[in-house]
Amino acid sequence: MLKICEKNKSFNGFQEVYEHQSSTTKSKMRFAVYKPKNSKNCQVLFFLSGITCTEQNFIQKSGYQKYASNKNIAVVVPDTSPRGKNIPDSEDYKLGCGASFYLNALTNPWSTNYNMYDYVTLELPKIIEDNFNFDIKKLGIFGHSMGGGGAIQIALKNPNIFKTVSAFSPICSIIKSDFSKKTIQEYLGSNVDSINTYDPITLIKLLQREDTIKIDVGLDDEYLENLYIKEFEKECQKHNQKLEINYHQGYGHNYYFIHSLIESHFQFHSSLI
Amino acid sequence: MLKICEKNKSFNGFQEVYEHQSSTTKSKMRFAVYKPKNSKNCQVLFFLSGITCTEQNFIQKSGYQKYASNKNIAVVVPDTSPRGKNIPDSEDYKLGCGASFYLNALTNPWSTNYNMYDYVTLELPKIIEDNFNFDIKKLGIFGHSMGGGGAIQIALKNPNIFKTVSAFSPICSIIKSDFSKKTIQEYLGSNVDSINTYDPITLIKLLQREDTIKIDVGLDDEYLENLYIKEFEKECQKHNQKLEINYHQGYGHNYYFIHSLIESHFQFHSSLI
Repeated sequence: MLKICEKNKSFNGFQEVYEHQSSTTKSKMRFAVYKPKNSKNCQVLFFLSGITCTEQNFIQKSGYQKYASNKNIAVVVPDTSPRGKNIPDSEDYKLGCGASFYLNALTNPWSTNYNMYDYVTLELPKIIEDNFNFDIKKLGIFGHSMGGGGAIQIALKNPNIFKTVSAFSPICSIIKSDFSKKTIQEYLGSNVDSINTYDPITLIKLLQREDTIKIDVGLDDEYLENLYIKEFEKECQKHNQKLEINYHQGYGHNYYFIHSLIESHFQFHSSLI
Repeated sequence: MLKICEKNKSFNGFQEVYEHQSSTTKSKMRFAVYKPKNSKNCQVLFFLSGITCTEQNFIQKSGYQKYASNKNIAVVVPDTSPRGKNIPDSEDYKLGCGASFYLNALTNPWSTNYNMYDYVTLELPKIIEDNFNFDIKKLGIFGHSMGGGGAIQIALKNPNIFKTVSAFSPICSIIKSDFSKKTIQEYLGSNVDSINTYDPITLIKLLQREDTIKIDVGLDDEYLENLYIKEFEKECQKHNQKLEINYHQGYGHNYYFIHSLIESHFQFHSSLI
């Protein structure tokens, strides 16, 4: 049962926000949906946001609705983690609420609720299929920072669910990045196999996609050395993964960068479907 | 002395935020500036935001940078009021910080600091002229809600400073609107002449502009009856003020509406300079 929380006309469609009880995260979850005007059987994109974000940041700040409207693409933006008074959290912004890293946690107290990998790959696609008239077979995924890495690790393992993939400034090594290296130990303990399952650089050595992965990153990104994008690029070359990567002079890690490049991601995803 | 607080590349220019000590409001003030790539002698627009906003709302949510970049227009976005621990405020969001209504207050405790009319018409244009290489003679003004009404009342009295004017969902009657009728009594007492000076509908009977005023408003605007736009339109017709007014089916009072229509405002202002 979906409860609608927000509905606002934006360009030719509507920007909506829904709430529901998730069986995967055992909590209430919110996600945003952009419904373009002619939504019947339209293409769908999932956008995964970065650390500290909710479903609101991308829908308020990226300016994407213009392109979703023009290209008649539905966009689904989940929250970045479960939330609520019974949901484990921490004072570190890199762990707990807002910082799920889109994985299934294995350890206490996280494993009951922090199952965002299953939420994004199983529960949410089913909810969208059951409640909206979009064509879930034309589903792609993209994201930013933590969510850019999340989009890549999810897409590499699920090419049958996610037909296209792109990322802004993705964290390509959850093992090495200062954003994630402690967090994944909290969520996954010392289970190296499981950690590797969520690590884009490790995965790309084992799994490649037939379609191109698109990445954009700013050269003035204040976190550039914590993203490990060059290392990911090198592994893509080594393992023949087609990669369209662009480094952009002057841009940072923020939504001003995403907004400046967002049109090209809609062009990319629509060109492949 | 301007202190730079934020600088982020956005499209071909930079979105910046500055802080300075204002002689008009006797407080620190922040304003945002979008510097397009070729800013020398470029056109400038001031954007006045609505109640509760700071300089951040418009720069994060409206998506305007794409058009400012394309058309090489600088945009200056002041905060909506003075702020700080020594600045009078109230618990009512319609009075005090975030709700200056762009007038010069006459009564205690407001009159020392709440001089946003002078700030926008005198101090800020001078600061921009002295610190940036834009052409201040090509200055226009626009705004939203409280700021839409503010843009209109300011432009009607200052055609030599502001060469073009437009508004999203403006409050056209500060005397009648529930957003302002109590507030203006707080700021201006029972001084009817002064109140009339800041009331768009009263002003348009006395002062008309040679150029067209552009207004956009959503027909699903939840505050439509508190904006008095139809009444303003009627007075414009009666007094031969050229008005380009468009009512848009389905849109509300929010930034999703502004974002959907923002391109047309850049087209409008650039076409007149």
